[in-house]
Amino acid sequence: MKSPLEGLRVLEIGHFVAAPFATRLLGDLGADIIKIEPLDGDPVRQWGEQLDGKSLWWSVHGRNKRSIALNLKVPEALAVVRSLVAHCDALVENFRPGHLAKIGLSDESLRKLRPDLIIAHISGYGQTGPYKDRAAFGVIGEAIGGLRHLTNHAPGGSELPPVRVGVSIGDSIAGLYAAFGIMAALWQRDRPAGDRTGRSLDVALTESVLSLMEGMLPEYGALGKIKAPSGGAIVTAAPSNAYPTADGQWIILAANSDRLFEKLANLIARPDLLSSQRFQGNYQRVANAAELDRIISDWTRKRTAAELTAALTSADIPGTKVYNAADCALDPQFQERGMVMTVDDPQLGRVLHYGVVPHVPESPGAIRWPGPPVGAHTEEILVDLLGFDAFRIAELRASGAI
Amino acid sequence: MKSPLEGLRVLEIGHFVAAPFATRLLGDLGADIIKIEPLDGDPVRQWGEQLDGKSLWWSVHGRNKRSIALNLKVPEALAVVRSLVAHCDALVENFRPGHLAKIGLSDESLRKLRPDLIIAHISGYGQTGPYKDRAAFGVIGEAIGGLRHLTNHAPGGSELPPVRVGVSIGDSIAGLYAAFGIMAALWQRDRPAGDRTGRSLDVALTESVLSLMEGMLPEYGALGKIKAPSGGAIVTAAPSNAYPTADGQWIILAANSDRLFEKLANLIARPDLLSSQRFQGNYQRVANAAELDRIISDWTRKRTAAELTAALTSADIPGTKVYNAADCALDPQFQERGMVMTVDDPQLGRVLHYGVVPHVPESPGAIRWPGPPVGAHTEEILVDLLGFDAFRIAELRASGAI
Repeated sequence: MKSPLEGLRVLEIGHFVAAPFATRLLGDLGADIIKIEPLDGDPVRQWGEQLDGKSLWWSVHGRNKRSIALNLKVPEALAVVRSLVAHCDALVENFRPGHLAKIGLSDESLRKLRPDLIIAHISGYGQTGPYKDRAAFGVIGEAIGGLRHLTNHAPGGSELPPVRVGVSIGDSIAGLYAAFGIMAALWQRDRPAGDRTGRSLDVALTESVLSLMEGMLPEYGALGKIKAPSGGAIVTAAPSNAYPTADGQWIILAANSDRLFEKLANLIARPDLLSSQRFQGNYQRVANAAELDRIISDWTRKRTAAELTAALTSADIPGTKVYNAADCALDPQFQERGMVMTVDDPQLGRVLHYGVVPHVPESPGAIRWPGPPVGAHTEEILVDLLGFDAFRIAELRASGAI
Repeated sequence: MKSPLEGLRVLEIGHFVAAPFATRLLGDLGADIIKIEPLDGDPVRQWGEQLDGKSLWWSVHGRNKRSIALNLKVPEALAVVRSLVAHCDALVENFRPGHLAKIGLSDESLRKLRPDLIIAHISGYGQTGPYKDRAAFGVIGEAIGGLRHLTNHAPGGSELPPVRVGVSIGDSIAGLYAAFGIMAALWQRDRPAGDRTGRSLDVALTESVLSLMEGMLPEYGALGKIKAPSGGAIVTAAPSNAYPTADGQWIILAANSDRLFEKLANLIARPDLLSSQRFQGNYQRVANAAELDRIISDWTRKRTAAELTAALTSADIPGTKVYNAADCALDPQFQERGMVMTVDDPQLGRVLHYGVVPHVPESPGAIRWPGPPVGAHTEEILVDLLGFDAFRIAELRASGAI
């Protein structure tokens, strides 16, 4: 029962979200991840809520990785990076385009040390083009990719700004694309008819987001139609929305087929809706969705989220309360499938982790250890992988490289 | 300059968004995708805006795929599926869990025909557990994965419901995980030390979403903290928000470091902010973010999006207008990098497509053709791949299988 990526070794020279998320995915499936960190660590170690000065997010974000702390401003540290590259199948980085080349780690120079190295560059706008040197904050990339325009209420519906998704969704999607691209390049390299050749990937956050925009671009091109946000609703199907509950929560309800709408009308004791011309078929229901949403809200507002979930489930109408952190943690399906699990973290105690996606029942991924302290594996890597002796390590320490 | 996945053949028995998105990613990088469709086609062919009764989204969603139209209720069609499986490396499906087994296409039976077949099952909740048989609408999976709770304004900020992201983000993320998992399983199978063994993957939409939730789960577990939505802002950094413009648009602006905040204060002619204790350092700025956002809004509201973008760019402050479909289509960076490109679609004319992600300069992916008509490749596949003769094809037609 080996994990799928056992035997794969990946070097991360990354920070923040995108590159470390890509290596989390590879590490979850069994790859040996060597993460190069500055001596004071990846800034994510300070992000979000802390316990005893340690980030809880880091326990997840850094899991299954070996941390080697290197000061890349010291030439001796760059020599260590070059030595490591020879032992790795792939490298993931998310500095500004050109930064690694500037410090002497160009793709070409790295391939002299490891000719079949796969290199994934992740950046805001890509490695080429007029915007490549711009600062690449996630919120800006999501806005340029077209996502932020759509996370809003319908035009005229609110004076408030379009919302952020609430997590760094653009970075995570770019990380997913990088992990996919690395595996595609490794398959091209390593399969029986493979070419044993290294390649570079160029993953842009803006483009990763744009690629998910479905009909937005072709519909604009052919019809000049600019896709508009639609708040909690779906523009092409009704009723489907989030509705308020008596206990201050929201319930999602999707009764957007004739059969489901009939069940809903009966459940809310409004069979009269079924004989109204205004709600006959999806087209009419979409046209009169606002009225329908008011009627449904009048029913949901008098009941708690728990009552509504039970009523919808027993009527076989797709619906759920909107889950918050507690709901996710306690959900029986997530628990049963190991998607919410407790991990013993030597620094933090018992920590809730997300399980591994995807499930591979015949060779499952695993959480082998939680995010380690900065440089926890520096000596282990230098000794076991590179064969450095104590004298050489002392020299590195004296130079400030480690 | 071969695409990375040339030589890979993938069978899709999918519909809607998740499975077809996974095969779009694989096809973009060069895989031969054989999509099995019902005789009346994938329902996405009817979704979104149409031109002459044909979906524009389909031109993108179905690109690089060969379509074979089969009525899986006819035994002769199932025999065709079995024959195809022997020629494929991987299979992707997104029916309800257990459906394929029920019609005689269990993983075990398919592996008798192709022992090293990789099978990716995509579903709402996964192939196991108490919820596995529930209807898996994307909006419901996103709510259970914890995303919908966060796409809202801060508590007390709005009476309106939490918004949908505007595209089927949960399905797309599940499709990305499936594509990544397939390539990981293929590498495990095909690399020099590979085990030449087929495996099954179990990708759940809810879990794919939950896996991106960063600190949400560990912070709840350790501190009981329930991550709250924060509207356009980031809870841990200020100022960073979307601000209104004079021409009814929104501008994103991220001046959430001391250096950037100083530039912004000077740009908006409010150097007095820099000497106020209330805005000294990120901690104070977050505490007084609402006041700061009002001050910044007073400045943005008097200027157009174009004026603001120019001012922020020349002051080197990360910022952008919130792009809509037209902005994405016309963006010079997307154009230069081939991320927005025109494709000749025999059914629709010239159609704007998203380019291929990731870029692989040494062996680029490509849009070989746009989404084809239903069954456009039925005969080609039966003749060239399976070696059927005209008599046998006539029999299939007579049985209603094709």
